Amino acid sequence: MIETLSKNTAFGGVQGVYRHASAETGTEMTFSAFVPPQAKVAPCPVVWYLSGLTCTHANVTEKGEYRAACAELGLIFVAPDTSPRGAEVPDDEAYDFGQGAGFYVDATQAPYDRHYRMESYVCEELPAVIAEHFPADMGRQSIMGHSMGGHGAITLALRRPGLYKCVSAFAPIVAPSQVPWGRKAFARYLGADEEEWQSHDAYSMIFTGRTVPALLVDVGDADPYLEEQLKPELLEGVCLEAGIPLQLRMQPGYDHSYYFISTFMADHLRWHAERLSP
Amino acid sequence: MIETLSKNTAFGGVQGVYRHASAETGTEMTFSAFVPPQAKVAPCPVVWYLSGLTCTHANVTEKGEYRAACAELGLIFVAPDTSPRGAEVPDDEAYDFGQGAGFYVDATQAPYDRHYRMESYVCEELPAVIAEHFPADMGRQSIMGHSMGGHGAITLALRRPGLYKCVSAFAPIVAPSQVPWGRKAFARYLGADEEEWQSHDAYSMIFTGRTVPALLVDVGDADPYLEEQLKPELLEGVCLEAGIPLQLRMQPGYDHSYYFISTFMADHLRWHAERLSP
Repeated sequence: MIETLSKNTAFGGVQGVYRHASAETGTEMTFSAFVPPQAKVAPCPVVWYLSGLTCTHANVTEKGEYRAACAELGLIFVAPDTSPRGAEVPDDEAYDFGQGAGFYVDATQAPYDRHYRMESYVCEELPAVIAEHFPADMGRQSIMGHSMGGHGAITLALRRPGLYKCVSAFAPIVAPSQVPWGRKAFARYLGADEEEWQSHDAYSMIFTGRTVPALLVDVGDADPYLEEQLKPELLEGVCLEAGIPLQLRMQPGYDHSYYFISTFMADHLRWHAERLSP
Repeated sequence: MIETLSKNTAFGGVQGVYRHASAETGTEMTFSAFVPPQAKVAPCPVVWYLSGLTCTHANVTEKGEYRAACAELGLIFVAPDTSPRGAEVPDDEAYDFGQGAGFYVDATQAPYDRHYRMESYVCEELPAVIAEHFPADMGRQSIMGHSMGGHGAITLALRRPGLYKCVSAFAPIVAPSQVPWGRKAFARYLGADEEEWQSHDAYSMIFTGRTVPALLVDVGDADPYLEEQLKPELLEGVCLEAGIPLQLRMQPGYDHSYYFISTFMADHLRWHAERLSP
């Protein structure tokens, strides 16, 4: 059962925000879903959008400018939250750990392992909800994300071969084991043994042979996190060695904000639509 | 002198937010301006966007989805605030009067007459700031707005013949003297004599012979304010009698939100661009 928090007509389709009780996280979870006008006629493919640190579903829903392209291309666009939330969910004062910063892993370490099950939530539980309640063709899914959510999109696509037809990212964290944001989160969600981190690290997974069918990445060259946290050159190098078809585009003048994301959103969605066509 | 609060590259142009000291309002005023890439080559025309009750510049800047079209069409897009703000500015607890609800008039009644000078601010002072600091062709201006800001756009265009090449609105208040929002605000900004209101009432001004060169209005038929506050049929009737070329489009299923506005924003901007071309 899902509860409708809001529904607004937009671009001929419906932008909704919904809440449901999640068995994975043991909390209520809120997500948004845009259903394009084409869904009145036939089930539509689903593009998943994973948000970055501090975000909820609302940031991309309000600022992502995806609806025009989704309505043109016939794509359902789903934006989950970035973590479980609530008084009972272990949190941290920092912006880059705890609530708002689930990193799209199933935590193995107490006290996080009870609620922080974002991989299972995003890849299994929420898709079942979408399949039940929306006119979705679940045989055609793809995934994209921003920053921490770009890490999520790429790692989930690498970990679940065949589930997503393609993956794209805006300013993703690509080697969490090698950067401060990732090291902090993985140490507490996954434990001190860095070996355990490698199957959630895009760079490491590609290095050891995992692959994705197609990968598009945009990064702004004025992104303040570029050198310390993002390191797209690591992804570029390892994809080249692995033969993964990566399009990495350094966008001049762009930063880490939704002004950057919204600029290239329609372009990403067109790229997804080509790979989601039946 | 203006202070830059933020600048972000977007759609090949620059989205900025700025603050300056206003002589008209006697306060600091914040506005946003998007400058499209075409402005690197030649001055661009200016589209003014006036926001609705409770809004600041930020609502349309974040949710309006205007940048893609402005970057395509070569339009500067300026979003002023909806009122003066600050501890010294008379306010009201209601959402529909006082700060956030300036109604784009120069108030004549104490204590509002000192700061609430939004017509002079929007039509004179801020354009001078834009002319000085931005690559703008001030001979080519047009104006649009939402709800209270749709009232502002239409009335300012009627009151300042020749200043704006065209005017459009999303869900405008068209007959403020006849609806609760307008009657409440006009009584306190303009006084008890309803004769004084008529030169700030779009319906009345058109009825008594004022005109605009072109007028485009979209209203959602699921707008909760449609019957009590908006009454687009009044505008339709009086424009028909006056011979003003009004395109009034009732949009099925749409409400009063930015999900509605963003859907038709690009369409409005294309309509403006045709009328702003040299």
